[in-house]
Amino acid sequence: MNQRYFEDLKAGDRFKSETYTVSEEQIISFAREFDPQPFHLDLAVARQTMFKELIASGWHTAAITMRLFVKALNFAEGAIGLGVDELRWPTAVKPNDVLQVEVEIVDLRESRSKPTHGVVRLRYVTTNQRAEVVQTMMASALVLRRSK
Amino acid sequence: MNQRYFEDLKAGDRFKSETYTVSEEQIISFAREFDPQPFHLDLAVARQTMFKELIASGWHTAAITMRLFVKALNFAEGAIGLGVDELRWPTAVKPNDVLQVEVEIVDLRESRSKPTHGVVRLRYVTTNQRAEVVQTMMASALVLRRSK
Repeated sequence: MNQRYFEDLKAGDRFKSETYTVSEEQIISFAREFDPQPFHLDLAVARQTMFKELIASGWHTAAITMRLFVKALNFAEGAIGLGVDELRWPTAVKPNDVLQVEVEIVDLRESRSKPTHGVVRLRYVTTNQRAEVVQTMMASALVLRRSK
Repeated sequence: MNQRYFEDLKAGDRFKSETYTVSEEQIISFAREFDPQPFHLDLAVARQTMFKELIASGWHTAAITMRLFVKALNFAEGAIGLGVDELRWPTAVKPNDVLQVEVEIVDLRESRSKPTHGVVRLRYVTTNQRAEVVQTMMASALVLRRSK
């Protein structure tokens, strides 16, 4: 796939990622390493909590979102994350959910500090196979410009 | 360690986590799975980029921050993340960095929708062994109240 540069984007562009299926093993393995809380680790324990079933860490959902974004946009030399706001998880991710990300380019400007790069503002919406929204966020990233 | 409840917190409380050393292998392994960009995957390629060295995905730093937070606070039944704002990565995390998190309780209120829980607003600052800030964020979480 062709690599993408700052100049290839315009405000309002939308990109849809491929899909990613999350297994129960992956949910438990991520949680053991990074978010060892009862509702992420063990179905029997999760049943006692308000969720009634095993759910993925929100940070796992965020990491899967990043994976789908990186593959869908394929920026030359990558996109350098500057910051994230309004990160929300309206619906929990459960075993065997099939996730997909839609990214919208909200706006673009040249970088004052790095003339080789532009700053892109993006809105991310991650959904499951029932079209329920499992994550939303706004992010800013540095993206390479074509050399003149 | 004793489990913590909503009533055990007051605004202004601060908690320091244990430390966590990030290896080059962990940086590469996380990036392969969730953030396959050149500056996270391969030292030789990273040297060609603006970073000049291998750096961890910001989502890896966020996941390590969660791990340190969960262990430091030890909430009864866990803390349920409602959302995150102002997530920033002012300094990149590199192989063998030793990370530590300081969490401040910013404010607390009872939950209108879940009377069994309270809503806590927290400020997180993650630093490395040189006391450089590698991540900051604000988050809200649902925390269990003691039953009456």
